[in-house]
Amino acid sequence: MTASQALPAVLDRIDRDLDASLDRLFALLRIQSVSTDPAFASHCRAAAEHVAADLRSLGFATGVRPTEGHPVVIGKSADDGGGGNGQAPRVLFYGHYDVQPVDPLELWKTPPFEPRLETLDGGRKIIVARGACDDKGQAMTFVEACRAFKAVTGKLPLDITMLIEGEEECGSKHLFGFVRDNADELKRDLALVCDTGMWDAQTPSITTSLRGLVYEDVRLTCADRDLHSGLFGGAARNPIHVLADVLSALHKPDGSVAIPGFYDGVHELPSDIKADLDGLGLTPEKFLGPIGLKIPAGEQGRLVIEQISTRPTAEVNGIIGGYTGEGAKTVIPGKASAKVSFRLVGAQDPAKIRNAFRDFVRARLPADCTVEFGSFAGNPAFEVAFDNPALTKARAALAAEWGKKAVTVGAGGSIPIVGDFKTVLGMDTLMVGFALDDDRVHSPNEKFDLKCFHKGMRSWARILAALAS
Amino acid sequence: MTASQALPAVLDRIDRDLDASLDRLFALLRIQSVSTDPAFASHCRAAAEHVAADLRSLGFATGVRPTEGHPVVIGKSADDGGGGNGQAPRVLFYGHYDVQPVDPLELWKTPPFEPRLETLDGGRKIIVARGACDDKGQAMTFVEACRAFKAVTGKLPLDITMLIEGEEECGSKHLFGFVRDNADELKRDLALVCDTGMWDAQTPSITTSLRGLVYEDVRLTCADRDLHSGLFGGAARNPIHVLADVLSALHKPDGSVAIPGFYDGVHELPSDIKADLDGLGLTPEKFLGPIGLKIPAGEQGRLVIEQISTRPTAEVNGIIGGYTGEGAKTVIPGKASAKVSFRLVGAQDPAKIRNAFRDFVRARLPADCTVEFGSFAGNPAFEVAFDNPALTKARAALAAEWGKKAVTVGAGGSIPIVGDFKTVLGMDTLMVGFALDDDRVHSPNEKFDLKCFHKGMRSWARILAALAS
Repeated sequence: MTASQALPAVLDRIDRDLDASLDRLFALLRIQSVSTDPAFASHCRAAAEHVAADLRSLGFATGVRPTEGHPVVIGKSADDGGGGNGQAPRVLFYGHYDVQPVDPLELWKTPPFEPRLETLDGGRKIIVARGACDDKGQAMTFVEACRAFKAVTGKLPLDITMLIEGEEECGSKHLFGFVRDNADELKRDLALVCDTGMWDAQTPSITTSLRGLVYEDVRLTCADRDLHSGLFGGAARNPIHVLADVLSALHKPDGSVAIPGFYDGVHELPSDIKADLDGLGLTPEKFLGPIGLKIPAGEQGRLVIEQISTRPTAEVNGIIGGYTGEGAKTVIPGKASAKVSFRLVGAQDPAKIRNAFRDFVRARLPADCTVEFGSFAGNPAFEVAFDNPALTKARAALAAEWGKKAVTVGAGGSIPIVGDFKTVLGMDTLMVGFALDDDRVHSPNEKFDLKCFHKGMRSWARILAALAS
Repeated sequence: MTASQALPAVLDRIDRDLDASLDRLFALLRIQSVSTDPAFASHCRAAAEHVAADLRSLGFATGVRPTEGHPVVIGKSADDGGGGNGQAPRVLFYGHYDVQPVDPLELWKTPPFEPRLETLDGGRKIIVARGACDDKGQAMTFVEACRAFKAVTGKLPLDITMLIEGEEECGSKHLFGFVRDNADELKRDLALVCDTGMWDAQTPSITTSLRGLVYEDVRLTCADRDLHSGLFGGAARNPIHVLADVLSALHKPDGSVAIPGFYDGVHELPSDIKADLDGLGLTPEKFLGPIGLKIPAGEQGRLVIEQISTRPTAEVNGIIGGYTGEGAKTVIPGKASAKVSFRLVGAQDPAKIRNAFRDFVRARLPADCTVEFGSFAGNPAFEVAFDNPALTKARAALAAEWGKKAVTVGAGGSIPIVGDFKTVLGMDTLMVGFALDDDRVHSPNEKFDLKCFHKGMRSWARILAALAS
């Protein structure tokens, strides 16, 4: 029996087993695996052991592998799923068992590690707990889909490697080395991630691109000390003026970035994809209204959804210079500094962007001023080709489950490990997630809709069957 | 005997009495009249009483007049000096008996309130103590000139009112009200101040203008919260960008200020005065070299000395927005702010400048951003007309004493009480001082050259005689 043949029974099994799958999720949610606080290290360890034991019960060969931080759980399926054609992709599923801190605790209606099911007005059911969505609830949709296949067919539908880390909420800092050190073991044909959101409660979504990031610290020095503006004002160079000139020059009047070569490697969306995005109807009012704004600030002539996901940006994230306290001080400072970041898309080269920016700054400095740069990030954008066969299969599977076309979206921010899957392991990642905008991820009273959990499991079952065929 | 006839004997008396005048200065320097620290309030009171007693010994009718802060010493001469022609100006002499704090105390070579005479290599003698120059030493040059006239002629050479305050080093905040409340008593024909410097150790100087000041706080708001640049970057307006655009637009490429109407009321220096300034040879290298700069930043085509004294400026004194700590944070802030000040000259109107600046900012704001302004200063420039007869006499007197033409200079900063003498009391001020650039005013080991003290007394004797004639 192929995975596709088994699918109806697998979906039925998921439906019948919903209560038990919820119990298993609750057991995981009760573990206080807050990764950023060393006081919770033993809880993180417990969560890793719990996940490993669960995977072992599904036939995965598991290991709780040490890092200098919290351990990584690895699980390797014993078989290739028997799709039979030998062409099914071997997949790496990535998720994380750690969660964000819970403070401010007093804002939680019930204790964050005592998961509960709540029925809202109108009958909507939600799972409430820290990690209910991010990422225990989401990761479990995949695990439960595997469990259903195992129950119905006696085996997993594909060659699956599980990579469940415990430091995502504090920067994944030991994961990068772990992936490099274990590249042979982790390198598969395709990575799957369940840590993103839906477009809305009815519309499934696949995140097909992540913007890259270049982050620069710019420190200007003019005079070698702070000066009294009465004595020196008019003759001494003011580094805030120099900095304002540089930062003001970063954008052209049409909102585009003025650094020479900045748009090298940026390409236009296929027209059908752009039409899909346009059809989502994300107007400036809808997107900017909730934060008190009305007028899109970015490149003119672009959809808001393009501006925030598939177009590159330059943003000043911070600036400081001179006197910033209460009242007045007539100082001309010796120094001023800013933090400037660039969101990258397509094939923009982080190193080239960084150098072009630094040249852009230096070209605008008076000869008696100096600049120092610091670099805090330099990762390229990630994107899945729109004609990737796995993407096509996943879109169809999601459409079948949700009864609505699955949109492909770009995420405005970066998920660095996905970049490493591409650059270090040479594989694409499909990011399919079921979070909703109101899930209060990272905030008090985090929740996950029961419907998202349930249909998430069913979605993964459909995707796995499609990939296996 | 006229004051001019008495002058040779008065100068001789000053020379012979130098040691005793130094003893009197030392007695005043021993009083720890630090005005900004409430712990020294009794010392300030003692200094006021000391000054009043000294003035009384010269025939002044004195009063130690209370304010809500430290007292003001008032002295009124009993006679008009008998110049005889009835046309000699009645003068108000302004000085201050308070001093700056002494910390860091460990940097003083000897205790700051134990004045001493030190002989430097080459034989140059200096008076070392807190207040040796600012302003006890300088004010005493005038008092001692009065004393010499009294000793030689039995009377003061002019109708003189003394106004010696005790809060100059902490903002003179109670003096403004005092001057208003006692305007009839203090309104004379001319004010004299001895609290400024010489051009250099050989070149006497009269400060004939002070720049005014408008100081504005500019607070921009775009979104109603801080935003994640990954989610919002590209569509959400960044207030740092808006602020940079505004601040960058403040100056034209030629260094002039771009605010419409900004130069209304600014006039050119008379050509002879400008030639005098040019002759001082203050090159960019000399002025900017010591602070690590080379290239004058202000209006192109102007002398450095014009840029810093007789030309108006716009300076950003402070700026802050977004993340300014260590490392990186990908935030688009909701707010950003700057402090912007303007040095005014000539007849520039502070209220008009403020309004023009605010209009300039508002004209550059996107429709969904808001701005709040705060105002911390708004005083006009002060200047003495170059053809003021008292100025002409003082210049001649200084040239006679120092053997070198006295320059007229503009001070880049403001001395607010001098503005009030003009606006409230309707009189001009001659600022004649003998401080040198290396006097370490406000710093440890403050000093005053004995030569400056000595020739300062002689200079005032000559000026008084000239004004009386």
